[in-house]
Amino acid sequence: MTTPDPDPQPAPRGTSRRGLLGLGAAGLVGLAGGAVLGRATAAQAGPLAVGSSAVGPSASEAHAFYGAHQAGIATPVQDHLHFAAYDLSPRATREDLVALLQEWSYAAARLTQGLDVSATGAVGGNPAAPPDDTGEALGLPPAHLTITIGLGSSLFSTGDSADSDRFGLAAQRPAGLAPLPPFLGDALQAEWSHGDLCIQACADDPQVAVHAVRNLSRTAFGRASVRWSQMGFGRTSRTSAAQATPRNLFGFKDGTRNVLGTEEDRLAEHVWVGEGDEPAWLRGGSYLAVRKIEMQLEPWDRTSLAEQERVLGRDKAEGAPLSGGTEFTEPDFAAGAIDVASHVALAHPDHNGGATLLRRGYNFVDGTNALGRLDAGLFFLAYVRDLEQVITVQRALATDLMNEYVRHIGSATFAIPPGVAPGGWVGETLLA
Amino acid sequence: MTTPDPDPQPAPRGTSRRGLLGLGAAGLVGLAGGAVLGRATAAQAGPLAVGSSAVGPSASEAHAFYGAHQAGIATPVQDHLHFAAYDLSPRATREDLVALLQEWSYAAARLTQGLDVSATGAVGGNPAAPPDDTGEALGLPPAHLTITIGLGSSLFSTGDSADSDRFGLAAQRPAGLAPLPPFLGDALQAEWSHGDLCIQACADDPQVAVHAVRNLSRTAFGRASVRWSQMGFGRTSRTSAAQATPRNLFGFKDGTRNVLGTEEDRLAEHVWVGEGDEPAWLRGGSYLAVRKIEMQLEPWDRTSLAEQERVLGRDKAEGAPLSGGTEFTEPDFAAGAIDVASHVALAHPDHNGGATLLRRGYNFVDGTNALGRLDAGLFFLAYVRDLEQVITVQRALATDLMNEYVRHIGSATFAIPPGVAPGGWVGETLLA
Ligand code: HEM
Ligand code: HEM
Repeated sequence: MTTPDPDPQPAPRGTSRRGLLGLGAAGLVGLAGGAVLGRATAAQAGPLAVGSSAVGPSASEAHAFYGAHQAGIATPVQDHLHFAAYDLSPRATREDLVALLQEWSYAAARLTQGLDVSATGAVGGNPAAPPDDTGEALGLPPAHLTITIGLGSSLFSTGDSADSDRFGLAAQRPAGLAPLPPFLGDALQAEWSHGDLCIQACADDPQVAVHAVRNLSRTAFGRASVRWSQMGFGRTSRTSAAQATPRNLFGFKDGTRNVLGTEEDRLAEHVWVGEGDEPAWLRGGSYLAVRKIEMQLEPWDRTSLAEQERVLGRDKAEGAPLSGGTEFTEPDFAAGAIDVASHVALAHPDHNGGATLLRRGYNFVDGTNALGRLDAGLFFLAYVRDLEQVITVQRALATDLMNEYVRHIGSATFAIPPGVAPGGWVGETLLA
Repeated sequence: MTTPDPDPQPAPRGTSRRGLLGLGAAGLVGLAGGAVLGRATAAQAGPLAVGSSAVGPSASEAHAFYGAHQAGIATPVQDHLHFAAYDLSPRATREDLVALLQEWSYAAARLTQGLDVSATGAVGGNPAAPPDDTGEALGLPPAHLTITIGLGSSLFSTGDSADSDRFGLAAQRPAGLAPLPPFLGDALQAEWSHGDLCIQACADDPQVAVHAVRNLSRTAFGRASVRWSQMGFGRTSRTSAAQATPRNLFGFKDGTRNVLGTEEDRLAEHVWVGEGDEPAWLRGGSYLAVRKIEMQLEPWDRTSLAEQERVLGRDKAEGAPLSGGTEFTEPDFAAGAIDVASHVALAHPDHNGGATLLRRGYNFVDGTNALGRLDAGLFFLAYVRDLEQVITVQRALATDLMNEYVRHIGSATFAIPPGVAPGGWVGETLLA
């Protein structure tokens, strides 16, 4: 959980962040301009901080941005997602990267509190200039927006050539940060895979999440651009005991057995990079594995109830294991009622040397394909202390009965830096 | 507004609608099977009725399905949309069309009350058969779901050849029901245009809207299939005085001047097909015009605040006309502050012989295009008594300053039959 902000340092009101945000009066600032302005403020962290006293209309609906861990992992999962993967411009320097992460952190601290992306907002600046904020969230509450920033493996080194380590980060690359290895049945497409950076924006209202990604993408202008993005709805997990277990598009409860935000011990064991872990800059952070998984809803919908339940290993009404009991009864694999190739049997920690994931995925519907079928599925997001945990479970799923009905079409992994104190910026432990 | 159901006739509980829904034990029923079963029940409307006493967990969150008008037009606009256009199978007969509309009406009456698509639900039937309901809305409240059914012009006749009037409906075609004429700047794509039938599902929760469209699409199996579909969020209108005006993706309040569901006189004048109007079968109904409009957000975001406000004719903060006042002050076009080519000046009824639309559109974000830009815009939906109203306003918009920032990529029109009493089915005034 994010810790409350002990010493809020509100941004000076009326200070124009236009320059800082990389947008000049002409609406466009070149690479150098943005970088210089960003860098100029990098040393003095104070003015970049947005404290919890600078809140919008409904502070009770706001998650703190500052804290030991980034919000959006252990905080209660919201109903809506806008996720974006970014690539840095080929000309972007380490200074650009630093400035971008500083500006993203500053903007995220404001947006999560229900504020405009900058103090001049959607209408407060010079009328002859483009507004800093695009305005579509004006008047909306914070809606529990969380903005979680990740760093892709391509940031650390892109190959063996001399110039491949353009940000000077190769030595600090986490040993386990790499694209996931190929798995049986993968049908990965480049357009849904990888990225130098990512933003996970989750909120109670899609308009608030879309506004966040859109304005952070603007902030990145000239330095990084969106590689791919994904909208999601109907959280397919729960990270708080107070949340009911939602259902995925197969109609089954999803998120029954998950790591909850209140389970400090399990978070420490399975999700947060720990005190003894390497690299040191990632301690208090995590790793994110992303899989875009198409679900073949039409064949699924023509499958008998008994077979659907066999595939999952749980019953559809209650979500109870087929070995009996209620939703939260532990499955009894020895009893024989749960197929050994069921999803739940194969994914269970007991069969994976204890490997446990904090799942935080979303349903998606991207429209309709040429056959008139819903282009839909699960946008799988899992946070782990070590990506090996995901690899172990995903390997186990090679014989999953569910594979007949799903197709993995996208994959990405990110290192998720720890949270920061007011005035800090995500990535500072790596780049400062 | 829909009238409350005076004489609810609950569906007999435990009666399997499997056959009726066109899904046999094997999961697939051929065209004939579905049609025969549908027809068998067409005469006795009783068992098809779902009364308001057969409600789900939160009746207070339910809109009545039965009433003088279909819900989803004058009822308060919800936050989420799933819209689908369907084409009938080339082999579908008039009997198939009748059966489909009966089954859709039956299913819609249940779904809008928070019930499963049929009495056997997602888990209640034979475990050896596919469940009737796909299950992802199990446990969710009705979420104010409305399901609005429309009939496209292609249903009435598809050309001049002898077999073009395959449903025997040519003589009953509303004179004004046709695809919208070409407009300046149109960039229409077949994949977002037209359709024999449509379903507009709106709800407080996208999962509920998606569930409705998915299950109605299953119901149609073998008789009609989805031609294209669209998800939408952040209603860009208001149809109730109690609703705040939302903002569209240009960051402007949208829906300030609209027809409200409580304005019976204006609804009668501008939205409902009236007692004296032709054709008689459409009285109490309406027409729906659909435009999928791409918004070029990046150029827009680089435009100065003053120019953005000039384009719209209203200020960004309050939504007040540039002639002064507050949001609901009438614009004073004579004062000169509002550009004659602004959107609001051109769209205003005073400049269009009084033409007035009930707008009920949604924002959409379909992902990111190859340039890393949001594939986003406005899914424009307008309900009118006569499509001429839309054509008049759209023609006026030929010189709209906004055209520099938008591109119409989809277009469709539908006749919206009147609402029905318990036991009735949408389309009965045309087809019974
Ligand atoms: C479309 C694809 C998927 C669907 C529909 C799906 C669905 C489900 C469902 C219904 C459950 C049971 C309820 C629960 O405990 O949450 C579950 C459990 C689980 N799934 Fe998945 N899943 C999918 C993909 C994956 C993938 C790709 C992974 C890992 C790489 C994964 C890992 C797990 C784990 C670890 C559990 C909990 C097992 C336990 O501890 O009992 N799932 N999934
Ligand atoms: C992306 C495209 C569009 C955007 C962003 C947009 C935006 C707006 C905005 C901000 C307003 C002012 C607030 C209000 O009264 O609701 C407005 C008014 C209006 N718009 Fe649009 N609009 C779009 C397309 C259209 C189209 C295609 C039509 C008709 C075919 C239309 C018809 C109207 C009408 C009738 C009004 C009310 C005018 C009045 O009575 O004052 N709009 N629109």
